[in-house]
Amino acid sequence: MIDGDMQEFSLTLDKFLRHAAKWHPQAEVVSKSSDGNTNRINYEALMQQALRVTHALKSMGVELGDRVATLAWNTQAHVESWYGIMGMGAVCHTLNPRLTVKTLSSMIEQSAAKILIVSADLLPIAQEIIENNERQFRILIIDGDPKSKSEPSDKITLSTSLLSEFMDEASTLDEWGQFEERQPAGLCFTSGTTGAPKGVTYLHRSNYLHTLRLLQAEALALRKMDSVLAVVPMFHANAWGLPFAAPCVGAKLVLPGRHTDGESLANLILSEDVTIAVGVPTVWLALLEHVESHDLELPSLRRIVTGGASMPPALMARLEKRLGVTVQTSWGMTELSPGGTFAVLDDPNRKAHLSGKPAIGIDLILKNDSGETLPQQREVEGHLYCRGNAVISRYYGQSFLATDDEGWFATGDLAKITRNGDLEITGRSKDLIKSGGEWINPATIETLVSACSDVALAAVIGREDQRWGERPVLIVEMKDQTPTSDESLLTPLRENLSSWWIPDEIIRLNIMPLAPTGKIDKNRLRHDYGAC
Amino acid sequence: MIDGDMQEFSLTLDKFLRHAAKWHPQAEVVSKSSDGNTNRINYEALMQQALRVTHALKSMGVELGDRVATLAWNTQAHVESWYGIMGMGAVCHTLNPRLTVKTLSSMIEQSAAKILIVSADLLPIAQEIIENNERQFRILIIDGDPKSKSEPSDKITLSTSLLSEFMDEASTLDEWGQFEERQPAGLCFTSGTTGAPKGVTYLHRSNYLHTLRLLQAEALALRKMDSVLAVVPMFHANAWGLPFAAPCVGAKLVLPGRHTDGESLANLILSEDVTIAVGVPTVWLALLEHVESHDLELPSLRRIVTGGASMPPALMARLEKRLGVTVQTSWGMTELSPGGTFAVLDDPNRKAHLSGKPAIGIDLILKNDSGETLPQQREVEGHLYCRGNAVISRYYGQSFLATDDEGWFATGDLAKITRNGDLEITGRSKDLIKSGGEWINPATIETLVSACSDVALAAVIGREDQRWGERPVLIVEMKDQTPTSDESLLTPLRENLSSWWIPDEIIRLNIMPLAPTGKIDKNRLRHDYGAC
Repeated sequence: MIDGDMQEFSLTLDKFLRHAAKWHPQAEVVSKSSDGNTNRINYEALMQQALRVTHALKSMGVELGDRVATLAWNTQAHVESWYGIMGMGAVCHTLNPRLTVKTLSSMIEQSAAKILIVSADLLPIAQEIIENNERQFRILIIDGDPKSKSEPSDKITLSTSLLSEFMDEASTLDEWGQFEERQPAGLCFTSGTTGAPKGVTYLHRSNYLHTLRLLQAEALALRKMDSVLAVVPMFHANAWGLPFAAPCVGAKLVLPGRHTDGESLANLILSEDVTIAVGVPTVWLALLEHVESHDLELPSLRRIVTGGASMPPALMARLEKRLGVTVQTSWGMTELSPGGTFAVLDDPNRKAHLSGKPAIGIDLILKNDSGETLPQQREVEGHLYCRGNAVISRYYGQSFLATDDEGWFATGDLAKITRNGDLEITGRSKDLIKSGGEWINPATIETLVSACSDVALAAVIGREDQRWGERPVLIVEMKDQTPTSDESLLTPLRENLSSWWIPDEIIRLNIMPLAPTGKIDKNRLRHDYGAC
Repeated sequence: MIDGDMQEFSLTLDKFLRHAAKWHPQAEVVSKSSDGNTNRINYEALMQQALRVTHALKSMGVELGDRVATLAWNTQAHVESWYGIMGMGAVCHTLNPRLTVKTLSSMIEQSAAKILIVSADLLPIAQEIIENNERQFRILIIDGDPKSKSEPSDKITLSTSLLSEFMDEASTLDEWGQFEERQPAGLCFTSGTTGAPKGVTYLHRSNYLHTLRLLQAEALALRKMDSVLAVVPMFHANAWGLPFAAPCVGAKLVLPGRHTDGESLANLILSEDVTIAVGVPTVWLALLEHVESHDLELPSLRRIVTGGASMPPALMARLEKRLGVTVQTSWGMTELSPGGTFAVLDDPNRKAHLSGKPAIGIDLILKNDSGETLPQQREVEGHLYCRGNAVISRYYGQSFLATDDEGWFATGDLAKITRNGDLEITGRSKDLIKSGGEWINPATIETLVSACSDVALAAVIGREDQRWGERPVLIVEMKDQTPTSDESLLTPLRENLSSWWIPDEIIRLNIMPLAPTGKIDKNRLRHDYGAC
């Protein structure tokens, strides 16, 4: 007997924009350019633009699997480039403009991209990258026509032009999606606050499945009626997947461009009736302070989704009270595409320090220092491992696996899982300090110190110690340079921690060094203050 | 340069129950047995039961790809059998007990199932099937211990036992999911109101992707907080996928067993705090009448999801007003796994005759009589075709494709798509009557006649006609056998339709013949009244 069958259906990302163009043709992508103008396009027209990008790339010899780099803000033209690159099966290598030119050059050297698509106001960085690189590049400018283009070096003149000049013709839809679903679609280097950046390759299939996870009512729950503000940059793990998810349901996608200060975001939320806003906690603090100081209301906003760093409980309470929104915490990382867990909406037990549950398609487990699964998985701390349909198995350029013998990826996070199955991130295992054979978790100390109202930022690192191996050192940036005694900073620690957890020294910095992601740059701190 | 990679992750259905057992271990499956008892089990224990079913089947020699038939109501034991069968890679062939023994015998002959799992009160039907069949069967009884088992024929004695007698040991989880994701998981024959039943093979991958579609906020939007009542039978296209979707998010799954009358459903909704109830419109009419006549309130119920037949606007309005719920219309068919479209919740333009939009992963198109795509796709009527990741490409046992040259499956429905992209089913193309070279759509006439308050059921079929080819005949079942003149039935037609659409004759039946799905049996009507 011949078995029946279901249709072949390759899970490729071009389908998202095709679907939007056909079923939600009038829904819009709205973005701010650096000069303050608002750009507005609907999905039907956006797909035509993306097909023109494909045509331009093909005319330059880009082929299936070739890497095309982007150095750009969250803008319409960046989204067009994404779909234009990915639709034809090339790989979109997103670059973070806040990294050093040296780091960016090393990344682009690794990816071997020969084309760099760059926001006009980032052209100077692109030019520096080129000066630092042996290879020939072609630079394609989006988001405006910079004056500086008229005064370049000879090398740059040869290879710099506006992308729009090549977008006279559109590829046909037949030229999209003609590859198998495990074809790479994107490349994103991790932020590297604890080591050298490593490249994560996203596949069409993994991004497709990740998008379906976002759309679930128990995850991001994006709807057609929504207007979603993607503050998280497209160069950070695909803007957490929003440029994929929004067209699927015909939600309005709102992109802030370069400016993500409180005032710019408040204006955009008001003008575009934003219902869901997505980004890291510091962004929402700035928004809140702007709203409070200008006595504003943001009536359309229903939900703020945070991730990327822990959400301070006091900030969450203030946001919910002042803005009348629900704050949905989440946890993820570049290697997870990036969504790991989302807080269950309307859960009466929602807490700022809890990050929610894994949706179907992703699984978590706690292991001990030796990589063995803990016998008890609830209410105990362990090393967090992850497995799933959009979780890394191997970094770009590495021949060895990033997973253990059982197929689990070590996140580098320390975590607990509550009795209810909610994830609580408790620290970074690479940050752990081993003192006299016992572990000290810097995150615990940092949380206590940060609760002091005079402290702006606090970090604890291990300093080499001949007797104990390592000893903790507390590094603080005070608000308004307030003079505060060591004792007032250490008192809450003495009240809550074992004596050997108390830092041996307190270092005061005028400005805490931050990594390009906005997180404290512990690599730098360890370099500057970690030697004995 | 070696490209990076994401983890292998096979889309197999066992993962749903694994996920539920780990992340939502306490969430429950609650079901009514035929004797009125309530059975209650949590997902952690349900998985263990399903692993015992796998052990039992393996001990009987069932192997990967073997078909195992079920003839059972929506019960806990049926869900256990499903996952036990599918988890090990065998194929669950669901049978509809309301079909004739002859039809059931032909289906099981086609599927070549050697094991039939049967609800105790359906054992007589199973026994008849066996008497009608040459092959040796093993019958495994669930849902009770029937007395009739003690008085069988010799043939039955040899092969009839309680499934529970073999469930002493559980397979390990390692024995689940050890196959590729395109492995068949289920087999369901279409109801065949317009032709012979045809088998639809569901794959693990297609059911997995269909489940992710259901979970979307813009589709079924199932949540952990939900208690979902699956009135639609598991033998009708997987109970529309609910036994797959509920464990994914840890929703409570409520199964009514055999009894789906208004009183039984109302009791279950009250006792299990049901929030979402899913089934065909006639079921909700019965529920409403029970609620009205007993002056009940169903405070937990938020939403009723309907499909399988068109929702009468007056019923929708009554349901929403009296029960305080949202009625979510949908459209689907066995060949679509079955979800095609879902109404957008909270859409102010929701209407009973509109079935919503396709979610990502499914696409619709309108074609003409010759199978060519209509140049205009909005606000015109055409033949509805479908394409997607859970849409049939070939029926069971057939060597030829069920799709056209462009890969589209012809649904057999006539439809319009509104300017907003909402689907409106307007009739069945096989029901169309060709009179004098022009098409007459019976559904249009039926809708007008059904609006008469005295009419219980109305059907229009074509009768052979020497002059015109076919002419329409109206067949009605009146409420309370009310005497109504032909003229009063035809007047609304004369006011709304061209003269040549008016039926030539009206036939009154005491009881309209219904197919086992509850739809009017047009095959039977054409057989009895279609000849000239």
